[in-house]
Amino acid sequence: MGIIRLSHVDITVPDLDLATAYYTEVMGMLETGRTDDRVFFKCWDEEDHHSLAIRYDPRVGIDRFSFKVEAEDDLEDLERRIERYGFRVHRVHRGEEVGQGESIRFETPSGHEMELVHEVEKVGSLLPKVNPRPYPTGLKGIAPPRMDHLLVTAEEVPEATRFYMEVLGFRLTEQLLDGDGHQIGVWLERSHTPHDLAVVSGPNGGLHHFAFWLDDWDEVRRAADILAYNAVQIDVGPTRHGITRGATIYFFDPLGTRNEVFTGGYRPDPDFPTITWTEDNVGKAIFYYEGELNERFMKVHT
Amino acid sequence: MGIIRLSHVDITVPDLDLATAYYTEVMGMLETGRTDDRVFFKCWDEEDHHSLAIRYDPRVGIDRFSFKVEAEDDLEDLERRIERYGFRVHRVHRGEEVGQGESIRFETPSGHEMELVHEVEKVGSLLPKVNPRPYPTGLKGIAPPRMDHLLVTAEEVPEATRFYMEVLGFRLTEQLLDGDGHQIGVWLERSHTPHDLAVVSGPNGGLHHFAFWLDDWDEVRRAADILAYNAVQIDVGPTRHGITRGATIYFFDPLGTRNEVFTGGYRPDPDFPTITWTEDNVGKAIFYYEGELNERFMKVHT
Amino acid sequence: MGIIRLSHVDITVPDLDLATAYYTEVMGMLETGRTDDRVFFKCWDEEDHHSLAIRYDPRVGIDRFSFKVEAEDDLEDLERRIERYGFRVHRVHRGEEVGQGESIRFETPSGHEMELVHEVEKVGSLLPKVNPRPYPTGLKGIAPPRMDHLLVTAEEVPEATRFYMEVLGFRLTEQLLDGDGHQIGVWLERSHTPHDLAVVSGPNGGLHHFAFWLDDWDEVRRAADILAYNAVQIDVGPTRHGITRGATIYFFDPLGTRNEVFTGGYRPDPDFPTITWTEDNVGKAIFYYEGELNERFMKVHT
Amino acid sequence: MGIIRLSHVDITVPDLDLATAYYTEVMGMLETGRTDDRVFFKCWDEEDHHSLAIRYDPRVGIDRFSFKVEAEDDLEDLERRIERYGFRVHRVHRGEEVGQGESIRFETPSGHEMELVHEVEKVGSLLPKVNPRPYPTGLKGIAPPRMDHLLVTAEEVPEATRFYMEVLGFRLTEQLLDGDGHQIGVWLERSHTPHDLAVVSGPNGGLHHFAFWLDDWDEVRRAADILAYNAVQIDVGPTRHGITRGATIYFFDPLGTRNEVFTGGYRPDPDFPTITWTEDNVGKAIFYYEGELNERFMKVHT
Repeated sequence: MGIIRLSHVDITVPDLDLATAYYTEVMGMLETGRTDDRVFFKCWDEEDHHSLAIRYDPRVGIDRFSFKVEAEDDLEDLERRIERYGFRVHRVHRGEEVGQGESIRFETPSGHEMELVHEVEKVGSLLPKVNPRPYPTGLKGIAPPRMDHLLVTAEEVPEATRFYMEVLGFRLTEQLLDGDGHQIGVWLERSHTPHDLAVVSGPNGGLHHFAFWLDDWDEVRRAADILAYNAVQIDVGPTRHGITRGATIYFFDPLGTRNEVFTGGYRPDPDFPTITWTEDNVGKAIFYYEGELNERFMKVHT
Repeated sequence: MGIIRLSHVDITVPDLDLATAYYTEVMGMLETGRTDDRVFFKCWDEEDHHSLAIRYDPRVGIDRFSFKVEAEDDLEDLERRIERYGFRVHRVHRGEEVGQGESIRFETPSGHEMELVHEVEKVGSLLPKVNPRPYPTGLKGIAPPRMDHLLVTAEEVPEATRFYMEVLGFRLTEQLLDGDGHQIGVWLERSHTPHDLAVVSGPNGGLHHFAFWLDDWDEVRRAADILAYNAVQIDVGPTRHGITRGATIYFFDPLGTRNEVFTGGYRPDPDFPTITWTEDNVGKAIFYYEGELNERFMKVHT
Repeated sequence: MGIIRLSHVDITVPDLDLATAYYTEVMGMLETGRTDDRVFFKCWDEEDHHSLAIRYDPRVGIDRFSFKVEAEDDLEDLERRIERYGFRVHRVHRGEEVGQGESIRFETPSGHEMELVHEVEKVGSLLPKVNPRPYPTGLKGIAPPRMDHLLVTAEEVPEATRFYMEVLGFRLTEQLLDGDGHQIGVWLERSHTPHDLAVVSGPNGGLHHFAFWLDDWDEVRRAADILAYNAVQIDVGPTRHGITRGATIYFFDPLGTRNEVFTGGYRPDPDFPTITWTEDNVGKAIFYYEGELNERFMKVHT
Repeated sequence: MGIIRLSHVDITVPDLDLATAYYTEVMGMLETGRTDDRVFFKCWDEEDHHSLAIRYDPRVGIDRFSFKVEAEDDLEDLERRIERYGFRVHRVHRGEEVGQGESIRFETPSGHEMELVHEVEKVGSLLPKVNPRPYPTGLKGIAPPRMDHLLVTAEEVPEATRFYMEVLGFRLTEQLLDGDGHQIGVWLERSHTPHDLAVVSGPNGGLHHFAFWLDDWDEVRRAADILAYNAVQIDVGPTRHGITRGATIYFFDPLGTRNEVFTGGYRPDPDFPTITWTEDNVGKAIFYYEGELNERFMKVHT
């Protein structure tokens, strides 16, 4: 019970058309809804209404991220826990938000607006529920099957971690410690994957990237081919992370929000023993092949 | 809370040495314990004491399968639920069983002895918990990172399914229906994978196979190379399942227990809508490329 | 100098429309020409006019196979050698055959009509010759980059082999010997690949299959997905050959001609030492994973 | 007839032991010979005595590169052509050089000592010639099956190209032109691969890198894992080349000679139409994903 996975990320973009063109033609998501100032997208294997929402705003940024809970009761239960921890919770009622029912919103210690939602409109994946084939035809671009995780920045990583773990029930798969043994990066999961949410040192409220799942290393190459052909700026990769063991490419959407495609990694159950990285290994921890971080990766977030 | 994953499968073999040679040299598991009539094995990325136990017996068969629960309390809670459902539960106390603490055992409607365990001796994976590399060196044979699932046979699949779902909390990802709409195969999960446990029509108490996870399709080819080189009889594959979408090879250990290597598939969360296969698609459901089942696959179990 | 590669295979089909639909939509070749009773196809990365021609005939069969020579002079030179060996050579003049210039045709000791051609109309690949991307967009079906080789049957394999080697300059990469040490299968190359032409025991004039190149094992899986989705009957595979080491799938076009997709294998230069397989290893030689041949593979040819 | 492939590259290293440890333990070549100041290595699937020779010298550099010719007569024929072009040819007689018979050596317009050799001692690959398995066991490190090509630098690329093509018979698969249409990079082949030898602008006599063949993109990832684990500095990659379409990693041996692992690319026959890249696409031409060259790649050679 409790949180089951990342539901959607809501970002702001200064050009809805350009962002829509990119997320549908290059990333290969499907547009599932649109209002005056917002567009909604899902991946082909996702059942829910959307996993990405973009809103027009002159500034590139993040409005909020939303996680889905398993049961109706989880909302009330978690609302109580959040308030007991000292944060005000705001209810968003059914009908107020596109594609979903009742939800709660609150600010986290990392300075982000977070949402928890139980009921999301089912629009269905691109495959039938009876005798399906393994994947659909007619996909465009990279076409990841689903959104995977996001990484945000926080001034006080340990404090944010405590909240995500103690109040929301996230489990710590990996952590990066500075020379004094303080957490400067944490990787947290609820869905038996290496991470659903990660937090690294940086300004409060920042979005470092959100990531799409790919099925294997060959899909990573294909993604790189498509990005290069479409003149999308690749930040780093294809490479491997030391943390999570996953294979990855970082790149930027045309408005400047960092995206990732990600695959691989282990499968951590709730009894998974936390892996620790020390600061002298930070290069390999993040980019196992390069063994060092680039400036852009460290400094740029939205 | 509740069951988090398959813990171990306990089978019987008429030749401990031959089976041990196969599971260590060809499959590439690690021997982690041994008694007069039993040998215990784990995969390299598993932390717990064993995921496979073999016991000497003149007949090839299955003693039991064991699932791990998240919390100490889960044992008592599930014990109550099982007894309320009408099955007697037997306690195995700490110290009675190799490599694990308190557990409960009971017969299921599919005629299997099942075990639930919370505390298992940690022997650790082959990687350190500080600054690990992505995988260890010196592995032998196929060397899967972990055990994945098992498939058992039952005379009354719907009845077994009800028990596994209502009492033990498994979720139904896929089902195969006969012409009358009755379940003749079900795929059940607790760990956000396409299946941790599957049940198909057959005699009560039978084991169709247990499966090891591989990381991708190239590992499947490598496994086939190793099996062929070691003259291990391949039953079917490399091929793809319609059900689970996974890639697979079926083959037999030298004593006749069917093994599988498996990779791929989707990632079902608890809100995953069940997929249904109809009997006229059974060939593609099981072996998507062949489109038909072989006799051996249908008839042979242990 | 001399033969540089397989140019095209000319087969007969009892249904031009059905065959065309299959070779364009499922196999993903491009139609490059058409006459009253013939259709011509090429793969996307091939420059020449066609690598496959189909002709209407009530019977499924092979008209001829054609190899390309490097220089104009090679035609005359090889014509002399063939006639000296005792076979009559027939000249086909420029303008007589679609998409190509002067060629010579002759019957081989394996009972096939073979053609050698130097000048072939260039229609170009799907990629530009200036600043190309790695592969084109908009491909359909399997879309192999090129035709790779063909395998024919002959009553007297050693005699056919002598002709192909001594007269036409093929080099022997692998051979399969029966218990008396006689060749029952040979693999021959001119283009630094494991085989451009292979001959196995069977009736004179038979076509066992022709094969398309795929770039890797993941493309083999994708091909199997497409074949299965299109209900194309798979004969064997995905599997690996012992001979050539290549990965493969055999299957039949809708009229009954066997096709193969093939990848991998070593890169033999002219100094490559021949590999020999003995009859007791014939199963592994042909299908390394299965270790045995199926009846259909042995008996069916066109 | 003529040149069939790269035979070996002879480099100098200031530390024979360190270089030997790297080329055997990390690269996974086999040591096949040793003299006072030289060590010889081959890859596991190569039949000839060596494809790499290292000689002790305080300076890192290249002594020569050697190509193999198909027939004994080729040596005399090419000797005449080279002398007619105006270069002096030096004969190295059987017994003078380790592991090979008669050869000729000469300086090329790119300022390199080049060797042509026909007879090379056969030490055999690691696989038997009768009923082999697809690859051997017990390999160490990256273990490429063979050496693939080398890239050298020349002050006057067009002049060097003319020599390699007109005198030695290389064919031009791709070329990179500056704004004035002059060649600043050429890719040349003799073995139906995208390149056996490449030349780019730079000082005469320089070695940019030599490259090992890998079988696919998954082997590229495995190579990167091994390099990273062994703390070998990766220059660029894993990435894709625009030129050749191949997948690649560049890195340095511990003494500073650049190595590459390479896979993929098309299969050019002698009738392959040359591909041209213009200088404004140089970034994509070399590193398709990054779209730009790094300083190190441009400046560092040995």
